[in-house]
Amino acid sequence: MALLSDLGTEIVIPVCAVIGIAFSLFQWYLVSRVKVKPDHGGEPAAKNGKNGYGDYLIDEEESINDQNVVAKCAEIQNAISEGATSFLFTEYQYVGIFMVAFAVLIFLFLGSVEGFSTKSQACTYNKDKLCKPALATALFSTISFVLGAITSVLSGFFGMKIATYANARTTLEARKGVGKAFIVAFRSGAVMGFLLAANGLLVLYITINVFKIYYGEDWEGLFEAITGYGLGGSSMALFGRVGGGIYTKAADVGADLVGKVERNIPEDDPRNPAVIADNVGDNVGDIAGMGSDLFGSYAEASCAALVVASISSFGLTHDFTAMCYPLLISSMGILVCLITTLFATDFFEIKAVKEIEPALKKQLIISTILMTVGIAIVTWTCLPSSFTIFNFGAQKVVKNWELFLCVCVGLWAGLIIGFVTEYYTSNAYSPVQDVADSCRTGAATNVIFGLALGYKSVIIPIFAIAVSIFVSFSFAAMYGIAVAALGMLSTIATGLAIDAYGPISDNAGGIAEMAGMSHRIRERTDALDAAGNTTAAIGKGFAIGSAALVSLALFGAFVSRAGITKVDVLTPKVFIGLLVGAMLPYWFSAMTMKSVGSAALKMVEEVRRQFNEIPGLMEGTAKPDYATCVKISTDASLREMIPPGALVMLTPLIVGTFFGVETLSGVLAGSLISGVQIAISASNTGGAWDNAKKYIEAGASEHARTLGPKGSEPHKAAVIGDTIGDPLKDTSGPSLNILIKLMAVESLVFAPFFATHGGLLFKL
Amino acid sequence: MALLSDLGTEIVIPVCAVIGIAFSLFQWYLVSRVKVKPDHGGEPAAKNGKNGYGDYLIDEEESINDQNVVAKCAEIQNAISEGATSFLFTEYQYVGIFMVAFAVLIFLFLGSVEGFSTKSQACTYNKDKLCKPALATALFSTISFVLGAITSVLSGFFGMKIATYANARTTLEARKGVGKAFIVAFRSGAVMGFLLAANGLLVLYITINVFKIYYGEDWEGLFEAITGYGLGGSSMALFGRVGGGIYTKAADVGADLVGKVERNIPEDDPRNPAVIADNVGDNVGDIAGMGSDLFGSYAEASCAALVVASISSFGLTHDFTAMCYPLLISSMGILVCLITTLFATDFFEIKAVKEIEPALKKQLIISTILMTVGIAIVTWTCLPSSFTIFNFGAQKVVKNWELFLCVCVGLWAGLIIGFVTEYYTSNAYSPVQDVADSCRTGAATNVIFGLALGYKSVIIPIFAIAVSIFVSFSFAAMYGIAVAALGMLSTIATGLAIDAYGPISDNAGGIAEMAGMSHRIRERTDALDAAGNTTAAIGKGFAIGSAALVSLALFGAFVSRAGITKVDVLTPKVFIGLLVGAMLPYWFSAMTMKSVGSAALKMVEEVRRQFNEIPGLMEGTAKPDYATCVKISTDASLREMIPPGALVMLTPLIVGTFFGVETLSGVLAGSLISGVQIAISASNTGGAWDNAKKYIEAGASEHARTLGPKGSEPHKAAVIGDTIGDPLKDTSGPSLNILIKLMAVESLVFAPFFATHGGLLFKL
Repeated sequence: MALLSDLGTEIVIPVCAVIGIAFSLFQWYLVSRVKVKPDHGGEPAAKNGKNGYGDYLIDEEESINDQNVVAKCAEIQNAISEGATSFLFTEYQYVGIFMVAFAVLIFLFLGSVEGFSTKSQACTYNKDKLCKPALATALFSTISFVLGAITSVLSGFFGMKIATYANARTTLEARKGVGKAFIVAFRSGAVMGFLLAANGLLVLYITINVFKIYYGEDWEGLFEAITGYGLGGSSMALFGRVGGGIYTKAADVGADLVGKVERNIPEDDPRNPAVIADNVGDNVGDIAGMGSDLFGSYAEASCAALVVASISSFGLTHDFTAMCYPLLISSMGILVCLITTLFATDFFEIKAVKEIEPALKKQLIISTILMTVGIAIVTWTCLPSSFTIFNFGAQKVVKNWELFLCVCVGLWAGLIIGFVTEYYTSNAYSPVQDVADSCRTGAATNVIFGLALGYKSVIIPIFAIAVSIFVSFSFAAMYGIAVAALGMLSTIATGLAIDAYGPISDNAGGIAEMAGMSHRIRERTDALDAAGNTTAAIGKGFAIGSAALVSLALFGAFVSRAGITKVDVLTPKVFIGLLVGAMLPYWFSAMTMKSVGSAALKMVEEVRRQFNEIPGLMEGTAKPDYATCVKISTDASLREMIPPGALVMLTPLIVGTFFGVETLSGVLAGSLISGVQIAISASNTGGAWDNAKKYIEAGASEHARTLGPKGSEPHKAAVIGDTIGDPLKDTSGPSLNILIKLMAVESLVFAPFFATHGGLLFKL
Repeated sequence: MALLSDLGTEIVIPVCAVIGIAFSLFQWYLVSRVKVKPDHGGEPAAKNGKNGYGDYLIDEEESINDQNVVAKCAEIQNAISEGATSFLFTEYQYVGIFMVAFAVLIFLFLGSVEGFSTKSQACTYNKDKLCKPALATALFSTISFVLGAITSVLSGFFGMKIATYANARTTLEARKGVGKAFIVAFRSGAVMGFLLAANGLLVLYITINVFKIYYGEDWEGLFEAITGYGLGGSSMALFGRVGGGIYTKAADVGADLVGKVERNIPEDDPRNPAVIADNVGDNVGDIAGMGSDLFGSYAEASCAALVVASISSFGLTHDFTAMCYPLLISSMGILVCLITTLFATDFFEIKAVKEIEPALKKQLIISTILMTVGIAIVTWTCLPSSFTIFNFGAQKVVKNWELFLCVCVGLWAGLIIGFVTEYYTSNAYSPVQDVADSCRTGAATNVIFGLALGYKSVIIPIFAIAVSIFVSFSFAAMYGIAVAALGMLSTIATGLAIDAYGPISDNAGGIAEMAGMSHRIRERTDALDAAGNTTAAIGKGFAIGSAALVSLALFGAFVSRAGITKVDVLTPKVFIGLLVGAMLPYWFSAMTMKSVGSAALKMVEEVRRQFNEIPGLMEGTAKPDYATCVKISTDASLREMIPPGALVMLTPLIVGTFFGVETLSGVLAGSLISGVQIAISASNTGGAWDNAKKYIEAGASEHARTLGPKGSEPHKAAVIGDTIGDPLKDTSGPSLNILIKLMAVESLVFAPFFATHGGLLFKL
């Protein structure tokens, strides 16, 4: 039926994954050629080349040969890398305990569905056939959960390693010009993006193939067990995002409040005791957290699509190529992103600050256009022209061009969300400039305008998501939603590259400041960083948009698996679920915001103490005690990530067990439609405040100069806004994606249990 | 069947309403005995009495006989009253145009349902019977819309008149002690509360009886036409809340930013050019807006209950007493509130500042306990022991005790919401004290903690609302929800009294400051005002909680009238409705926040200009130009209330007409579950910031003194939080109630049109 044979599929997917990994390693090699070790004479000079391949000796800028600066950068880089590694290892110990406990829970809950029987049972959807026992699904779900968790952890960890490897190199390249620095930062982002996309695909692919050995023709059970992979990925992402988010913002807020506001020293000044913790935070929060988060989205979208496909005609007729459609889309995505990356690093060169944002924007446009063609190719080579999709109890006939439109609508919705986010968070446009302008009258108006901007920025993304949902839902039910999510995530490698680029540039600026490099270098890294704030917001926009689609797809899969055919708002069980579900993001945000606030207060006290008690610290003659600040952030984040984590992990279990699947459906839908709004507005508000501050600092326009310079009253007001935005954009906002996805995937995994034993309270 | 005969019902309801009006007038008489005209000798001295009846001559405090102060107070009061009256008249001109236009729209839309035919038609629910033509319903709906609108406008207007009548009297009484001042402020609140509750009941009752002359036995048509009353009430409330909210906060924020922050002069200092506009704002926003809002809730809850009852056994068997159950509950509420009021004004006396909050809290508790008995009496005397309620196409058998529980659960949920709100917004408890403490490290942590507090304060109210919904929905479907809402609103007279008390005290403080009265007087009015912030937040909590129940009841009535039997989340039409509906509160808040921000910026410029250009203004030798500031607020509010108003009024029309009733159902449910959360968190965050500031200013505890005094860095940070909270708590937050209610009632009124002609886009 399809052009691509099953054997072809078996070959194409791993090959694409390997190409992605190879490309990632090659990028890494290129980054590694920027030397951070001082040249101790005698070594042969690197060859001159193009775009950072080896132009170490271009002596066009100041201090290029100052080996002290290089040594200092290397030292700072080491400190950051060690701090981040040590934090992540500590975090993983805690998370490891959780992982084991939750794995046991999954096994027990799912095993109990058929009373731990080892006998084969009638299939859930096709009662005439025999399927593997529930105990097997329990076991394999547990295994795939662990695999997902480990892959997620590794994604975050490798991302962090690469980022801390790249930051000092970006700083050093900034001496040669903004274009060189951009390329190093972007390449490093690409290393992470490709590694993560390819690795996620490969592990999932291998897992499916290994599980198939046991499951054989029982694809229903096979792909049900695979959903554990998504749960594992997302549950690790939860702790990564929340823990990392609290860590980074406690340090950032604490450092800014004493350093910038009280002591009037620059951001990232090495005299500030919290400065290392702040830079470590960027890597464990924005990089490792984001990596885990997007991996989770990707894994869940794939699982949601696969589980629905397994009970549609693809699964029923055992059409392996069509079954693997989600994986093939992702494989194509890797190739498309590979070409797209070359546009940023090789086909064009950045020469001026103002070209950075357009270059990043071009990445989005190019990848979207190429991917549209890619999706068409995959669709027409891999799918039969007509097939059926499971639609809440019935089978719906779908044409291949309809599915093509589903994927495309997700992809293009992602682009629209990206553009809108850019418009609302970049200081090149009027919204952020208005916010900056409102700083004239103080912090209060800045905050009012910023909040209003965040609220307003929700409108178009929501319409974009709504249209995607309507189109894909109408064409191909929940499978359509799942592939729309995959469409949005298909360019994940590029998305992650431009996203990771932000914190790397931020760190590079920090290192420049700490290494005592000149004002010019700092200006360049600041320009990179300002673009990075926008791309970070874009990345969050993608993460949120895809999370909305993913969780809806998972929700649909859950509803199907739980045997519900309608979720009627006009029943009290469902309605109260909706209402309480819509409240959960607020509860969750209250916890995370308060955690950041409290941890920041502790940090402030410690930083003040050090300034007061360490003689010579302000004068720069004594070194601050960085380690204590790192410890405060570490302790706070590990302690404070537990309550919000428990809220997210326990809610589906409690609601499902005691109130049953209808109420749980309501909770999932409620938290989805409410969470997505808060998440978008929080991350855009924060991004806008950050860039309003940078707009005043940079003073690039007549208007900006009337507000500045650094230290003016409007600038102080802008700093307050920026500080408030920190937990919104880097802790609460992005964690909400995970809240909505994770509750959905957890419900899906536990659906067999809830369907059998759930709703105790109403049964009594 | 019931103990109370139909004739008894015909007598009891108007009698209770008249008692309420008489009590209100009596309270007014008592307030009026505080003289604001200077005594020009020769007049007989008022008799000494208790609780402000006539103790004008107690000469226990300073300046009691200083006729200059009295004259000054009278002058300021006049200025405020004139400003408020002039604004409201201008507002009503605009709103009047809207009212006429919308009345025409209602008539045309509803008339077109049967093509303007004047022939009788088959009833909607009972096809065997003949009902009045759709054209008649169109006409009567239009009339009841106009009646509702006029009653709403009058409620707001009278409230404002009373408040501006009482503010200077409260100030003058504050010279004699905090207890005297409290009683005047509270009595004045009671005037408004009782007038509004009784008036709303009476007009509705008369309208029903007049319409019945035409409709006769066609109760289905009669009560369908009555729903226009709710729409009229709420649409006026929208403009009142939004227009008044923008007015008051533009002035407040503008006055504070220049006066308190830049010029370092106290709040309400007469040198501040925006001070009159600020005080006018309290009356047009918090008083007139709140009055219209709660009247709207009350009218809508009654209409929702009546329209469902008309198609239940009450209506089918033409049991007039049972039909009037909602009105009888409200009648009982007036009597209960009357007794409750006496506890505050006559049975006990307040002697110290710390007794104010407990006294107000006691009002809530007493009214709730008495009302529980009252509900029992009404239920067992007016209802048959068993009856049926319309439940989305079927008739559900309900017992009278079940309905009793429905009303009670709403009533008690209101009390819980009130208590939780008090806990989170009063500076007697740790949440606000924590927020105050976070001011140590500046405005940023204050804002972070404040936002977290607001988010957290949502949790318990949402559970309270959810439980109410579950209980009342399970017992008596949508009728249960409507009477639960009425239960919450049954003590509206007391609720409004303690709510209106807040802005009156606020104004009293302003007048004391402007009249140059001593620090001691200002301290007393500040104490009254701090309690007022809490009660204002409680009032908003009630308003939001009841709005949630009311809009759900209206939603249910809409769904019934539109002929839908399920609203399935698993259909794309409904789901995108939910998602977009949940976004609307954000869109709306973005508009209102931005409006306040922009208007405040204009105000700041004008105030600065006056300080710079009017010689002798800072020294107090020249008078500021108050009128220009009043004009800025007026112009801003009239211009800026149109876009949010249009969003709310047009959304149901557009969605219903083009996308049909399923999508509209989704939009209503989505905006309800999302809006209620934002509304609660916004109003509590704002209240908490305001009281954190007052906590530092008052310095009543060891902890508070370490943060103060006025002018300290923590205090400055607290002022910034307070300013940010202003639009949240007084513009965006409370307007959201109306958004969710109004869209629901509008959908209900237009349901016949949507059911016949709606969903054009999907039909094409």
